[in-house]
Amino acid sequence: MKESKNPEQKKQKRSPIKIIPLGGLDEIGKNVTCYEYANDMFIVDCGLAFPDADMLGVDLVIPDFTYLEKNVNKLRGIILTHGHEDHIGSLPYLLKKLNVPVYGTKLTLGLVEGKLKEHGLLGKVALNVVKPRQIVKMGCMAVEFIRVNHSIPDAVALAIHTPAGVIVHTGDFKVDYTPIEGEIIDLARFGELGNKGVLALLSESTNVERPGYTMSERKVGKSLDNLFKQAEGKRIIVASFASNIHRVQQIVDNAQQYGRKVAVSGRSMINVVTKAIELGYLYIPENMLIDIDTINRYPHDKLVIITTGSQGEPMSALSRIARGDHRQVTATADDFIIISANPIPGNEKFVTRVVNDLMKTGAEVIYEAMYEVHVSGHACQDELKMMLSLTKPQFFMPIHGEFKHLKKHAALARSMGIAPQNILIGSIGQVIEIDGTEIKCTGTVPAGQVMVDGIGVGDVGSIVLRDRKHLAEDGLIVVVATIESESGATVCGPDIVSRGFVYVRESEELMDGAKKVVRASLDSCCNKGLKEWGAIKQVIKDDLSDYIYAKTKRSPMILPVIMEI
Amino acid sequence: MKESKNPEQKKQKRSPIKIIPLGGLDEIGKNVTCYEYANDMFIVDCGLAFPDADMLGVDLVIPDFTYLEKNVNKLRGIILTHGHEDHIGSLPYLLKKLNVPVYGTKLTLGLVEGKLKEHGLLGKVALNVVKPRQIVKMGCMAVEFIRVNHSIPDAVALAIHTPAGVIVHTGDFKVDYTPIEGEIIDLARFGELGNKGVLALLSESTNVERPGYTMSERKVGKSLDNLFKQAEGKRIIVASFASNIHRVQQIVDNAQQYGRKVAVSGRSMINVVTKAIELGYLYIPENMLIDIDTINRYPHDKLVIITTGSQGEPMSALSRIARGDHRQVTATADDFIIISANPIPGNEKFVTRVVNDLMKTGAEVIYEAMYEVHVSGHACQDELKMMLSLTKPQFFMPIHGEFKHLKKHAALARSMGIAPQNILIGSIGQVIEIDGTEIKCTGTVPAGQVMVDGIGVGDVGSIVLRDRKHLAEDGLIVVVATIESESGATVCGPDIVSRGFVYVRESEELMDGAKKVVRASLDSCCNKGLKEWGAIKQVIKDDLSDYIYAKTKRSPMILPVIMEI
Repeated sequence: MKESKNPEQKKQKRSPIKIIPLGGLDEIGKNVTCYEYANDMFIVDCGLAFPDADMLGVDLVIPDFTYLEKNVNKLRGIILTHGHEDHIGSLPYLLKKLNVPVYGTKLTLGLVEGKLKEHGLLGKVALNVVKPRQIVKMGCMAVEFIRVNHSIPDAVALAIHTPAGVIVHTGDFKVDYTPIEGEIIDLARFGELGNKGVLALLSESTNVERPGYTMSERKVGKSLDNLFKQAEGKRIIVASFASNIHRVQQIVDNAQQYGRKVAVSGRSMINVVTKAIELGYLYIPENMLIDIDTINRYPHDKLVIITTGSQGEPMSALSRIARGDHRQVTATADDFIIISANPIPGNEKFVTRVVNDLMKTGAEVIYEAMYEVHVSGHACQDELKMMLSLTKPQFFMPIHGEFKHLKKHAALARSMGIAPQNILIGSIGQVIEIDGTEIKCTGTVPAGQVMVDGIGVGDVGSIVLRDRKHLAEDGLIVVVATIESESGATVCGPDIVSRGFVYVRESEELMDGAKKVVRASLDSCCNKGLKEWGAIKQVIKDDLSDYIYAKTKRSPMILPVIMEI
Repeated sequence: MKESKNPEQKKQKRSPIKIIPLGGLDEIGKNVTCYEYANDMFIVDCGLAFPDADMLGVDLVIPDFTYLEKNVNKLRGIILTHGHEDHIGSLPYLLKKLNVPVYGTKLTLGLVEGKLKEHGLLGKVALNVVKPRQIVKMGCMAVEFIRVNHSIPDAVALAIHTPAGVIVHTGDFKVDYTPIEGEIIDLARFGELGNKGVLALLSESTNVERPGYTMSERKVGKSLDNLFKQAEGKRIIVASFASNIHRVQQIVDNAQQYGRKVAVSGRSMINVVTKAIELGYLYIPENMLIDIDTINRYPHDKLVIITTGSQGEPMSALSRIARGDHRQVTATADDFIIISANPIPGNEKFVTRVVNDLMKTGAEVIYEAMYEVHVSGHACQDELKMMLSLTKPQFFMPIHGEFKHLKKHAALARSMGIAPQNILIGSIGQVIEIDGTEIKCTGTVPAGQVMVDGIGVGDVGSIVLRDRKHLAEDGLIVVVATIESESGATVCGPDIVSRGFVYVRESEELMDGAKKVVRASLDSCCNKGLKEWGAIKQVIKDDLSDYIYAKTKRSPMILPVIMEI
């Protein structure tokens, strides 16, 4: 392990370390950061993002991996900080293109295994389990794992030892002095690194808008205890994030205390619970976990059901319970339902719908701020300040956040005494170089959003999305005609078919009128001797869209198809 | 004015008053409530709702007016409580179907005029200005206007005097002891009514989840003052709701204090400001209001621009400034931008996008909870309790809210001592009868959502929306073939056209394969002697969708068109 201890050396201009963020800046999700020095590079995390509302039909968004593919011979490995989707979700897509070893803690790699299995990659990729305080060599660089707290167990920050100096990369973290499992964040090691000299800190920005400290996860346990008391005599259903194993542990602990059995519903909840038990991250006493199919054998007041769906996802177990189409669980006035999560921005309406539907069954529903049934997994302002104070970095770069978060985090760093010229708000695709004297952007590489729809990766682009948006807004009208190639006379048609435009049975007049308009267009083209298909189609489009807009103030997509015989 | 003063009479079973909510229950928006007694009826408010995310392409949602149309001979008038869209927005659509007199306060009717003009109805409808404490006769009933505070001036609650007793209908309200303009909510009159005996209270539920009291609008003025100081030397841009004239007044007052001119941008802001000045609800000193086209004649630190767009609406003035395509305003580091509103649930992501984009211009942006730049216009729990305490109703029905709000408001009423059997959570379309002894639902009338898209009212229904959703998710494939009618042989085609499915130039192989599949389907139909078009189309659909799904895991809409010669 090389650390720059020589103060002489510090002042010299060293050969710079390159940092190339390929995701996670000016956006939430798809965190990937490339570190490069001379002939060696590695990436930290390989996450996905969920599509915006305007990415119609898109399942998920992954980073543009072009730069990594082009430099595969330099790529020494992939380092993972923890097992959340925005940090590991795009890993299978990258590993399908290039095979490099992956490093992470036990639970993180346990969750990665599940993903690789789904994509038929299991056994083809080297997965290396690393423990906190261990160091992994990446060519001329070395990566040290440092324990942090987060809303998933086994999360780590990284100290990246490079010839240019030490860089601390936090990943996601919070400071929890009373964590449910495992240890407190390794503040001492951050302090030691800071004292020896940290070249740069890259720190997460998710909660930078919130003052103070994030509450301990243990707080939720106390709230749950109160609610379990309140729920006496009723069945308890708790929805939470599957990956929040500490939360699940606290639900289980409360269930045990109140003599209730636990059943699990929802695919991802079952997967994660199974994996967490197998790897020793979740402890459920013998005979306490029962199959969801057997819940009817137990009285309601002896049951807790743990489910997915805390974000109101329409296909989740909780949404199915709310709609009354869950196979094993029917909500009634005999249920006490706890949604143990806050809505992620954009999901508020989904969650509200589920809450309303659940309440209509007569069930009691505890949600959001009503009780302290959720705490965040991300550092608030004072924890971010603590990280800055411990590591005392020469340079600072906020990561993991939208522009507003990065800007606020930069202001926080300035308020802590870091010089403005030593702070950089980066963008994805920038090549950022840091040596002992400055931080600057020296170039760019390809970076962006690659959309995944079904098994198609990248085949949905802006044109396809534009068309989907157009179709979604006003539907379409297909016009078909068969034309005699010599004369240009219409032999057959025009036929008009519409979808998503109007309810045709009640709009016969409109559709008859449309047919007349198209017939007139075809006749006029024929009379003018216009035979070029593209031109004829354009005339039909223009005439018909004018007619339709005048009648309805709508602009459906118009798709003329001309056949020739 | 008839009030039931005789205690003897109170205990007797009276002929019941019918209350028929046609909107506003179990939903946000489109508030309409019908009151009916014997041969007389009237409605309170006539609002619209904004479409849910899954109502693709729909502009707005209005109530089902069938019941009113069927009973037009009984309908004595339309009473408006205030000028917000969710209370007056569907009025033109109703007035196109039936012509009845409209009653409201001056500003409310001023805003209604604008709407009627847009719909070509101005001058055709009787608009009657009523002042608080005035009473309007509605057949055997009488409606009394009572001053309340809200986020728009000139809002009123109603005391509805019926032969069955007095009903208090709050409309939207808050208690503001220091309103910007006009008077404090007429608590005394509510108390007087309560003392004499109120049969039922219908009270709004928007903020029932929030404890305590709503802050006074004046609080915002103080925050703005601080921010105006902080913005010294910069241009100030404030985005707010157009209808919040008190907010606009406070911005103007601050501008005056700091010697700044005021310009207005955004169609609805210009409309409302113009109307409010004309009617005397907004006071702008002479020479202070300047045209947005002339802002370049003034130094930045002498300017305030008031705009729409506080909800991040993509076409609003503020969004255009953020994207850099506003004709007169270009944001720079020299701008201080205040978003003086909270995001309405569902709009969080739009607002965040605007904030990020504005910040990228270098401008300072003040938003949401960072400073107290917004207060709500709706009563919180303690104000709702105050209304219950003042009116002391025999029966209670929460209105204006989703199910979770109505349920919570019902619980609040129970906690105030109203007997559970005297509280009813209603649904739209229910006929709710109240007499001196009970409240109950005795029947239903048509009620629901009528979607408006362009000038089409109600021609977009569930089938059209289902198709739009399908098109939005996976796009479509059109298959066209011309068939010889006798033999069933394919004369021409099949041609395949897709939109919103894949980027065709990069998917030639897939599309060629699709053509082969369809040709095989057509041949097999021909060989089997299948000539029924519907059957042939189904074969094509099935074969092609199997092929496409196997290759892409997507299910585009498949639209076969067969022509016959």
